[in-house]
Amino acid sequence: MGNVMMNAAVMKEKLHIEVEKMERPVPGPDEALIKVACIGICGSDIHYYEHGRIGRYVVEEPLILGHEVAGTIVQVGANVSNVAVGDRVAIEPGVPCGRCDYCKGGRYNLCPDVFFLATPPDNGAWADYIVMRSDVLFKLPDTMSFEEGALLEPLSVGYHAMNRANVRPSDKLFITGLGPIGLLAIQAAKLFGVQEIYASDVVAFRREVALQMGATAVFNPLEDSIVEELARLTDHTGIDVVIESSGNHSSISSTVNVVKRGGRIVFVGLPPENKVLLDVDKIIDSELNIYGVFRYANTYAAAIQAYAKSDLNMSEIITHQFDLQHISEALQLCRTQKDKAIKVMIYPRSE
Amino acid sequence: MGNVMMNAAVMKEKLHIEVEKMERPVPGPDEALIKVACIGICGSDIHYYEHGRIGRYVVEEPLILGHEVAGTIVQVGANVSNVAVGDRVAIEPGVPCGRCDYCKGGRYNLCPDVFFLATPPDNGAWADYIVMRSDVLFKLPDTMSFEEGALLEPLSVGYHAMNRANVRPSDKLFITGLGPIGLLAIQAAKLFGVQEIYASDVVAFRREVALQMGATAVFNPLEDSIVEELARLTDHTGIDVVIESSGNHSSISSTVNVVKRGGRIVFVGLPPENKVLLDVDKIIDSELNIYGVFRYANTYAAAIQAYAKSDLNMSEIITHQFDLQHISEALQLCRTQKDKAIKVMIYPRSE
Amino acid sequence: MGNVMMNAAVMKEKLHIEVEKMERPVPGPDEALIKVACIGICGSDIHYYEHGRIGRYVVEEPLILGHEVAGTIVQVGANVSNVAVGDRVAIEPGVPCGRCDYCKGGRYNLCPDVFFLATPPDNGAWADYIVMRSDVLFKLPDTMSFEEGALLEPLSVGYHAMNRANVRPSDKLFITGLGPIGLLAIQAAKLFGVQEIYASDVVAFRREVALQMGATAVFNPLEDSIVEELARLTDHTGIDVVIESSGNHSSISSTVNVVKRGGRIVFVGLPPENKVLLDVDKIIDSELNIYGVFRYANTYAAAIQAYAKSDLNMSEIITHQFDLQHISEALQLCRTQKDKAIKVMIYPRSE
Amino acid sequence: MGNVMMNAAVMKEKLHIEVEKMERPVPGPDEALIKVACIGICGSDIHYYEHGRIGRYVVEEPLILGHEVAGTIVQVGANVSNVAVGDRVAIEPGVPCGRCDYCKGGRYNLCPDVFFLATPPDNGAWADYIVMRSDVLFKLPDTMSFEEGALLEPLSVGYHAMNRANVRPSDKLFITGLGPIGLLAIQAAKLFGVQEIYASDVVAFRREVALQMGATAVFNPLEDSIVEELARLTDHTGIDVVIESSGNHSSISSTVNVVKRGGRIVFVGLPPENKVLLDVDKIIDSELNIYGVFRYANTYAAAIQAYAKSDLNMSEIITHQFDLQHISEALQLCRTQKDKAIKVMIYPRSE
Repeated sequence: MGNVMMNAAVMKEKLHIEVEKMERPVPGPDEALIKVACIGICGSDIHYYEHGRIGRYVVEEPLILGHEVAGTIVQVGANVSNVAVGDRVAIEPGVPCGRCDYCKGGRYNLCPDVFFLATPPDNGAWADYIVMRSDVLFKLPDTMSFEEGALLEPLSVGYHAMNRANVRPSDKLFITGLGPIGLLAIQAAKLFGVQEIYASDVVAFRREVALQMGATAVFNPLEDSIVEELARLTDHTGIDVVIESSGNHSSISSTVNVVKRGGRIVFVGLPPENKVLLDVDKIIDSELNIYGVFRYANTYAAAIQAYAKSDLNMSEIITHQFDLQHISEALQLCRTQKDKAIKVMIYPRSE
Repeated sequence: MGNVMMNAAVMKEKLHIEVEKMERPVPGPDEALIKVACIGICGSDIHYYEHGRIGRYVVEEPLILGHEVAGTIVQVGANVSNVAVGDRVAIEPGVPCGRCDYCKGGRYNLCPDVFFLATPPDNGAWADYIVMRSDVLFKLPDTMSFEEGALLEPLSVGYHAMNRANVRPSDKLFITGLGPIGLLAIQAAKLFGVQEIYASDVVAFRREVALQMGATAVFNPLEDSIVEELARLTDHTGIDVVIESSGNHSSISSTVNVVKRGGRIVFVGLPPENKVLLDVDKIIDSELNIYGVFRYANTYAAAIQAYAKSDLNMSEIITHQFDLQHISEALQLCRTQKDKAIKVMIYPRSE
Repeated sequence: MGNVMMNAAVMKEKLHIEVEKMERPVPGPDEALIKVACIGICGSDIHYYEHGRIGRYVVEEPLILGHEVAGTIVQVGANVSNVAVGDRVAIEPGVPCGRCDYCKGGRYNLCPDVFFLATPPDNGAWADYIVMRSDVLFKLPDTMSFEEGALLEPLSVGYHAMNRANVRPSDKLFITGLGPIGLLAIQAAKLFGVQEIYASDVVAFRREVALQMGATAVFNPLEDSIVEELARLTDHTGIDVVIESSGNHSSISSTVNVVKRGGRIVFVGLPPENKVLLDVDKIIDSELNIYGVFRYANTYAAAIQAYAKSDLNMSEIITHQFDLQHISEALQLCRTQKDKAIKVMIYPRSE
Repeated sequence: MGNVMMNAAVMKEKLHIEVEKMERPVPGPDEALIKVACIGICGSDIHYYEHGRIGRYVVEEPLILGHEVAGTIVQVGANVSNVAVGDRVAIEPGVPCGRCDYCKGGRYNLCPDVFFLATPPDNGAWADYIVMRSDVLFKLPDTMSFEEGALLEPLSVGYHAMNRANVRPSDKLFITGLGPIGLLAIQAAKLFGVQEIYASDVVAFRREVALQMGATAVFNPLEDSIVEELARLTDHTGIDVVIESSGNHSSISSTVNVVKRGGRIVFVGLPPENKVLLDVDKIIDSELNIYGVFRYANTYAAAIQAYAKSDLNMSEIITHQFDLQHISEALQLCRTQKDKAIKVMIYPRSE
């Protein structure tokens, strides 16, 4: 039996990706082989592509990127029972060890030994097929498309932010930064029953999409007096929770002024310079809670359950679609057209 | 019936306090009159005395300072049933409205209409007698001295910090800044069953007291490599919770490096410049929780219950005692002898 | 100035109510006078009317019943600032002391000194006007009718149940007993983003209304094999939370069999005989959480925020409407037509 | 290389155990081989020995019992890094799958695929050696004996009960049933800083041991008016948390009367008849929380940290010691001398 071959997009070095043939992986007893239907391009993929690193994660070998994936099961290992051949699935990209203190305590996103797609040295999913441990595969209901399955990944970040801040339906939210994470955080908030969701971004197109995704009102931080506007719009009751997903220094600093006394702030967006001036006096005087969000845990099954029968449509953030052979063009678009491209989806289209 | 007179120490203006005669207050139907046994001098008292303001609170009229109080009930209003004449009590200095959202939600420390002793324009307790609403009076068990009753106030800050960070007996703590708040936070941690409590301060005397109060080990941030030392001492398991009570900028910034992944930081000490550089990247990558602490709520009864039968002794932080007539000397001591004076206790000694 | 008179329905003794003239109350400084727009009849009103008592609460004097109220502010006391004359408001019927441990801890529904409309010896709201402390008055947005304002009371029970059980959007719920509490618990669940809500009642009409209110599927406990059905419908993932609002002994006992391992049960409905056989072995082996619900706390503002802009319609549970003069007929209907009457609304219609 | 042999006590059928030679197990790559130092006899061991089953767990093949174990590492697999040869360790008897929803959510004690020592069909530790996956091995500090290491297992049940009920240092506890679980729950409460711990048992000797272990006062439920006594002793503030570890029907029923309004009850002891009459009306009217406890999760490292430097001594519950050859005598003692035997410890004493 000769080995089956497949296409994969390999980042050879910074700004250089080649689609090449390689052996299709074979699932082990606890794994499944998935034929990839689509993969989203994430900001981190672009960052690795441009800079070859993100913080402490450095690309030192040729690497397959891509970690927002959905596809169809084509083969399962002997021990696999939660999915079957033919199932349409979303893939949670992190495979935790299951045995460390973080894993046993329910915070497996902090597992030091996690395998995570497209985080060096772990390869990602820009390929016709991938193999994953079966417990990270989640069946998609008929009401969800492959694209929505792939978008569960960025949605999970927002969903995790809601969990971290223990968001309630009565909370008023302010979400800063309307890239895919911020936009899907709007929808995560809606899944939690939130009715009043304010949002901000400097790009007009993104603000428009935010309104389509369900934002109550949107602001341009370069032009609007956001603190005053929010006070007025909330009848001076204030913002309960700020989700900071812009990574912008000024935006991060202003979170403590926007949120009400006793409120909660979630930091999602990584600032380019690590250190940001924060009004610690205000954190104390207003007795704020601040939560960092690193990836997510226990969100896939939950988000599918909350989303599948809702009237939301995550796919509205998809602005462009490319097949895997044109991955370099897709990345170039992402890098240069930030005002137009929100989520770009890649399709292997293997026959 | 002529009015009964009493002594009170009135701050006339910055750095100027006079002990003068005034009418003894008369309790209303929900109130009690307390003969003051002792009052601690708090850092905020000294700050008002020196600067005439703390942030948004400004001394605009002559003001009686002092809010760490214990005494004996000498008269009660018609509706009072929780305390009786002769009871020895600790006084919680904040009297919340009981009707706003914060009060109804259990966070009455954030009540915008709270009366708080010695916070302008509310007078404090440097007097022979004070009147308070009876629900802020807590009977002292026989095992607790008046001094311990007065120290429940600074202890409450640490106790509240433990509640905010949901401290568990298995947590390893690091407490920075060993003034009264930090030192009593050590004891608050011990009340919560914590076994491993590291602490730091630049003043050697304070570090010594910290060891007496139950710290596991102490550091001088100017000399010691704290991150490395803590890694070694905790066998690389790391610090679960940092209680920052120094207000020092460098100490605040370093909290995110000291705490373990997934750990919690509590900000208690107000930095002199409000804004501090914080590594937001680290907050995200380590998925930290940061909690501000503003005063406390629901701590007095709890702390009495936890402390009264314990083997701890808060009084070890009392380094000096003055009678009310010598309040100016006491304040001068506090201002000039920071290396020797930790907690200075004032006694009205009215006959 | 002569005293202004009004009508009120006074329960003289069991099964005997008279509408009589009495002086209109005058608001104190912290209070407001509300012209009542409508009042729902609650099961507890009927129970007092029939039996003269509920458990430890006994009607010993003539009593005005009714505690599900909305109306318009016509006069405010000198200290009132949160509402103004002309405001349309919902009235939270409990006025807690604000000073006991339960109040200060955020669980004011357990306040031993609470005033609660229509709980002897406290009079209720079956009258043209009532006076209430202003902090229990909540402005209705334009999108909410008076009827919806009155229904915030039974909705609050369900909303509190969601809070008690920390319901998440991904939870699958089973709600037993489809009187007003159970039906509105369905809508409370929807406010929390819950997508899968099963419900049961022996009365077909109530099951129909449940489907209209948003239930996913309904069962008749006398005919259906509920455990098997729920297993099938949830694809054997199980029910996360059971809200027991029937008070039926058999239904209460079966909650532990219906809920999944690690699940949560909320007891809302009072069983006629206090004691019920519960499988404690199962509670332990499945490590369940069981929560009692007594009234509610901090739900009015939250429920208004969550509900006002939602697409839900609580008013669908109103089956009958009477004016205050016909209160006895209304009560008779409630007692005798349990299959047809769900929520009966009373209108004072004072000119 | 011939196989190494060892002794193990095998339950052949009810009431029949034989110590026989068998091959010493060999650790896999993620496992370690532990030379057993001591194993406690648990009530469940006795129950399997007497009845051949506990609820849904049935002994169908010869079975090695015993799951309270400590010992010394003598060999480790290739992947093991958290322990090393020569380490003294306590063994957590449950090895969860690490991949199911319960495991990933932090409640691995509910894992349906857990391997658990001495729960059929999984063999236990009454043997000279056992092999375990290394992540369930916890190094014992020098301050802890092997016996204390073995007792971490029953302590974990109480420790988990404290976690489940979120016990705070200010809580007043009542613990019913003073077998090893109840007695060690007293010490778990002390680890959490609890100062007021009441306890009850019908056996005088157990009540005496409870006082030695740190109980504040003890009662005989057959003679004492416990509700009245507790009201008096707590100055009518009431019991915050009841830990029911007797499994006695009357005791279980009375928990709801003993606990204060808003209080918490933890069910630990399995009643012989599954169903118990519980006052559901009271659960609702007092808005109680009830928590089942099934084994424990994340307790071993935490309990070691909390206990190792404390002044507690779990070993006081050990009343008898036998070597493995006399296991049948030990079991006979446990069955017949319930008034004298609390914890019986078994020593393989392999040379």
